Order: sequence, then C-alpha cells, then structure tokens
Amino acid sequence: MLETLVERRPAVDEAIAEVLPREIDEAYLSEFFGPATHRYDADALQRVLADPVWELLDRGGKRWRPVVFLLLVEGFGEDRERYLPYAAIPEILHTGTILVDDVEDEAELRRGEPAIHRVYGEDVALNAGNAMYFLPMKIVSRNPAGLDAETRLAIFEMLSDELNRTHLGQGTDIRWHNDADADPSVEEYLEMCACKTGCLGRIVARLAALVTGQSAEREQAVARYAETMSVAFQIGDDILDVEHSLGEAGDFGKAFGNDVREGKTTLLVIHALETASDERSRRLREILRAENNTDDEIREAIEILRESGSVEYARETALELAAEARDHLAEAELADEETEQLAEFTRFVVERDV
Amino acid sequence: MLETLVERRPAVDEAIAEVLPREIDEAYLSEFFGPATHRYDADALQRVLADPVWELLDRGGKRWRPVVFLLLVEGFGEDRERYLPYAAIPEILHTGTILVDDVEDEAELRRGEPAIHRVYGEDVALNAGNAMYFLPMKIVSRNPAGLDAETRLAIFEMLSDELNRTHLGQGTDIRWHNDADADPSVEEYLEMCACKTGCLGRIVARLAALVTGQSAEREQAVARYAETMSVAFQIGDDILDVEHSLGEAGDFGKAFGNDVREGKTTLLVIHALETASDERSRRLREILRAENNTDDEIREAIEILRESGSVEYARETALELAAEARDHLAEAELADEETEQLAEFTRFVVERDV
Repeated sequence: MLETLVERRPAVDEAIAEVLPREIDEAYLSEFFGPATHRYDADALQRVLADPVWELLDRGGKRWRPVVFLLLVEGFGEDRERYLPYAAIPEILHTGTILVDDVEDEAELRRGEPAIHRVYGEDVALNAGNAMYFLPMKIVSRNPAGLDAETRLAIFEMLSDELNRTHLGQGTDIRWHNDADADPSVEEYLEMCACKTGCLGRIVARLAALVTGQSAEREQAVARYAETMSVAFQIGDDILDVEHSLGEAGDFGKAFGNDVREGKTTLLVIHALETASDERSRRLREILRAENNTDDEIREAIEILRESGSVEYARETALELAAEARDHLAEAELADEETEQLAEFTRFVVERDV
Repeated sequence: MLETLVERRPAVDEAIAEVLPREIDEAYLSEFFGPATHRYDADALQRVLADPVWELLDRGGKRWRPVVFLLLVEGFGEDRERYLPYAAIPEILHTGTILVDDVEDEAELRRGEPAIHRVYGEDVALNAGNAMYFLPMKIVSRNPAGLDAETRLAIFEMLSDELNRTHLGQGTDIRWHNDADADPSVEEYLEMCACKTGCLGRIVARLAALVTGQSAEREQAVARYAETMSVAFQIGDDILDVEHSLGEAGDFGKAFGNDVREGKTTLLVIHALETASDERSRRLREILRAENNTDDEIREAIEILRESGSVEYARETALELAAEARDHLAEAELADEETEQLAEFTRFVVERDV
C-alpha cells in the first residue's frame, strides 16, 4: 500500500495540475474559467491561488484519498487511467479544508512548516481554500470520462450533500472548543468525526462508485467503509497524541500534549470525563479549559486519561470501527487484490506507530 | 421598486427559513442533511449556524437579489410563487460571502453593528459562511419546482462556474490590497468587480432563466444585465465613499475616507494614478500604502482624487455601464412592467444619494 502511495503520487499531482497549473496565465484563465469580460490579472491570481496551494501540496501529504479512489475504481474492475482526472477532486477539496481549518484553528504549523496563512496572510489562505471548494466541480463539468447528464447530476448532488455535512462536523467541533461547558456524548463525538473527517472519505468512495456506474447498494457499502475508516483514523490520531506524550510512541511530529494544550474534546477525554471520579473529572475539565497550562498540568491531565483506561477504550473503539469498515468493504465485493490492499490500508491507518 | 423590496422581504425570509430555520433541532437535521450515523449535536449547530446567520439577516439588508430574481421570473411571464424557494439561493450565498469577506477584510462593522466574527469568533463566522456556500445547493436537489435532471445539472454547473469566478475576483482584490506595488489597469479593475460582485448578480439572473427554461440567448442577456449593473453598483459605492468625504453626499454609514484609509484600489484611485502629475501620483500611492494616516493625509488623498477629475470619470463610467445594462435588459425582451421596474432599479443603484 505504501509503495502504491509513493508510486502514484506523480500521476495524481499531474491530474491536479491539469485544473490548477503551477503557472497561471491568461490562456489558462480564459480556457478554464471562461473568457474575461474585461481582463484578468493573471499575475495576481498566480500569487493568491497557484502559489499558496502548490506550496502546501509540495510540502507533502500522502495523497491517500486519490490512491484509495483509484484502488476502488480498479476494485470495481474499471480502468484507472480513464478516471484519473477525477482522483484530483478529493485531494483538492482536502487541500481547501486544510487551508481554511488552519485559520479557524489558529494553527501554527502544517506539514512541518509555518501554516500557509502565516506565510501568505489569512485573507489569501482563506480565499485560496474556498476557491479549492469550487475548482473540483469544474472537473465534473469538463466531463473527461464522458459521463451522461444523470451521472454528472448525481456527482454534483453527492458533493454538495457531503460538503454540507462536512461543515456540520467542523461547526460542532468549533462549538465544543469554544464552549467551556460542552459535554458531548460518545455518539455525538463519533458523529462529529463522521461529518468532519468522514464526509471527505465518503466523497472518495461515492465518487469512485458514481463515475464507474455502480449500484446504489455498492455505493453505500464503500461510502460506509470510507466513513468508518476515517473515524477510526481520527481516533487513531487522538490516541497517538496521548501515547506520544506518555513516551510510548515514536515521534509524531507534534508538540507534547498537543490536544490537551488545545483543550480538544477527544474520545479519550469524553471517556475519562464520564468514568473518572468527580474530583479527577473536575480537574481534567479545569486543565482543558485553562488558557495556559504548565507542562506539569498537561502531564496531570494525561495521567487522568491513562488511569481512566481511556487509551484502551479508544483503541478498542478504533479497532471495532476498523472491523466494521472491513465488513462494509466485504459487502462491496471488490476484486480480491484491491480488497486486500484496502484492508491492509485500514490496518495501517489504525495501527500506525501504535 | 423600493416598495417591492419592502413588500417581498417577509416571503424571502420565509424561503430562507425553509432551508435554515431559526431553531435547529434533530428532526430538521435528519430531514435536511440526512439521518446521522451516530447522533447530531443540535444545540451546538444552533449556536454556530442558525444564530450567527440569522443575526446577520435580521440586521437588515435589502434582499434585492431575491427581489430581482422574482422580477425576472415574472418578466419571463412565469409564476413567482412557484419559484419562490429558489429566491433564497442568491441571498444565502450573499450572506455567506459577507461572513467570509468580513474576516478576510478584518472588517469591524457590518450593518451598523460589530461584524459577526467579532461577536461569535472568526472560526464560527468562517464555518457558517462556508456552510452557506453549500446549503443553497440542497434547494436544487430538493427540487421544489419539479425541474428535470438536465435543468438541475445546468443549475449546478452555473453555480459552480460563477462561484469559481467569485473567488478569482476576491483573490485579485486581496492581492492588490496586500501588494504595495500593485498597478492594475482600468480593465483589470472592471474584471475584478465583474468577478467579485458581478458573479453573484449573474447567479440571480441565470438562475431565473434556468428554472423557467429560457433560451441560452435570453439567459446570456439577463446575465450580462446583472453583471454590468453590479459593476456599476460597485463603482457607485467607490464614488459615494469619496463624495461623502468631500461633504457632497448624505450619510453613507461608513467612516470618513474609509476606502483611502483601507488603501483600497478603486476605479477613482486607478484613474488618478494614471492621470495626475508624477509628484501627486507618488503622494497618493504613499498615503494609500501607509499603515496609519492622519485625517489631514486622508483629506490630501481625496483632494488628489478630486483635482484629477476622478469622481467625474468614475461617474461617467458608471453611467455608461448602467446604459449598457439597460441595453442587455432590452435584449432580454421581458414584460413591460418588469422591464420598467428593473430599469428603475438600475437608476436607483447608480444614482442613489449621488
């Protein structure tokens, strides 16, 4: 799987460059967005669109969404070359959400360097991020695989449905972050992840099913596979953050006790608040709410998570979700080789570094 | 026309409430966005979606986009009641752009009160704004007028095309604002307005044409009408800002010399930079670039605009565009009564308070 990721990256980046070239000129603007009524300022658009977006893309990222898209296409027994242009859709959307979320979360770093809004300014990052929400829709209109009108409509409706729910997830997460009295349940946490992270996974899967003309049942099965796997992935992230802080995981590329410092409501936190003694629970909430904490306070919060068995609880939940994801994958009845590769990917996602 | 605006506002707000009710509950979320996989947090979504969006809507705004949409529908000889739900689309999109632009521009006030991001936080305002970009697409999918698949596809493609260009316009404007050496031409300025402001107008017009099944020529004519009128409107805004500062216009609801203070590249500025003496042009640029200016410096910049005849130049350009808009309107051959109301609206837009 990891080899597949590395191998396919250049082809994916080429597909992205087809719709957002590294060098923007008037010919591209007129052809792609339609002729100007007056005159485009290509140089300005170079600086506010191509430069920030390609800087972020060139910093890395595994391009796993396009790769899973292509694996699904192959798993349906279809030709991946024919549908390659569509693989850019989820990656461009994902890049857009990173640009916007990093402003919303006041992130400092992204992929080991200052976040794009800290380099280009918040206004540029936000506008570029939002532009990346609509740019991929042009791929559907350009119709590189010659899909019929009904299929193109189904893709537009799917994208708009999933992007609507993405914003429900992000909005819910923001609210919990801002509300000192937020007290979400496990079910609400899983839904937040299913919307915020899962919907982009669902886009990958449903897009692969729609462009290749699969049945509604198969589309639903791969959508549930991708959604469930994405939630498992998110919980894996939450676990890694704490395990790293407990010195039990390798270098995770983030600061020590990052999630606690940010006051993030993770599955581990929800579990600990529900199961710890009133006193320990109150203390955990206090540290999470505080604007600033000493390293000792961060360690104390992590100790409360540890002693509550929250790491084990979260790992069990992630493993259950991963098993559920594999069940959905089985329902989709893909070709054996791709099923194996996707199952391997699911294991990798949940078990990486853990 | 002004009576029409006031009269129709409640019906428009009802159409908006159909897709974003003032009170969000789980029944609405499940019905509108689809059932949760786990469980929505309706209270959180009330705080981050319905509250900020309705606060902004309730502060006012003329709802002129939905009203022009309905006038066009009637001008095509169609029943406005049937297409009322679609009137919410441009207003919700417009509300989204306000929420996002105010963060990007670091605006302090909106409709006479602190901008939404200053009340709810940047994260909430941005996410709510972005959510409003996708929410209206659900109206197309819900298909209240029973449009065929081809028409719905055409609407999705139109929305994605115009929203793509909106971001080109906003990106260009941001770049000029950030780049001390920006030197856009008149043609580039008009294009920036055509994209940033004009595309939302084009959405109003093309949506009215598409839902009622007009010819491509008629769709194009009303689109050009709306685009050109929107650019004239923007230039009218630029003129008012300076006239107000020259004490020649009524209260405009903005601070004295607002555009100069913000270093905005307006049509008046471009004209003055091109026509003033080298010394005066250099001085104007200097004041526009400065982080802080005294009131005397603001007055000096405005004096340079005045002595260059930039106000007259901009007014002439706006009047030419308004005449062009009326020509496009004539091409569309609408019913007489609606043509007259829209022409009156065009005059109002360009000549208000001037």
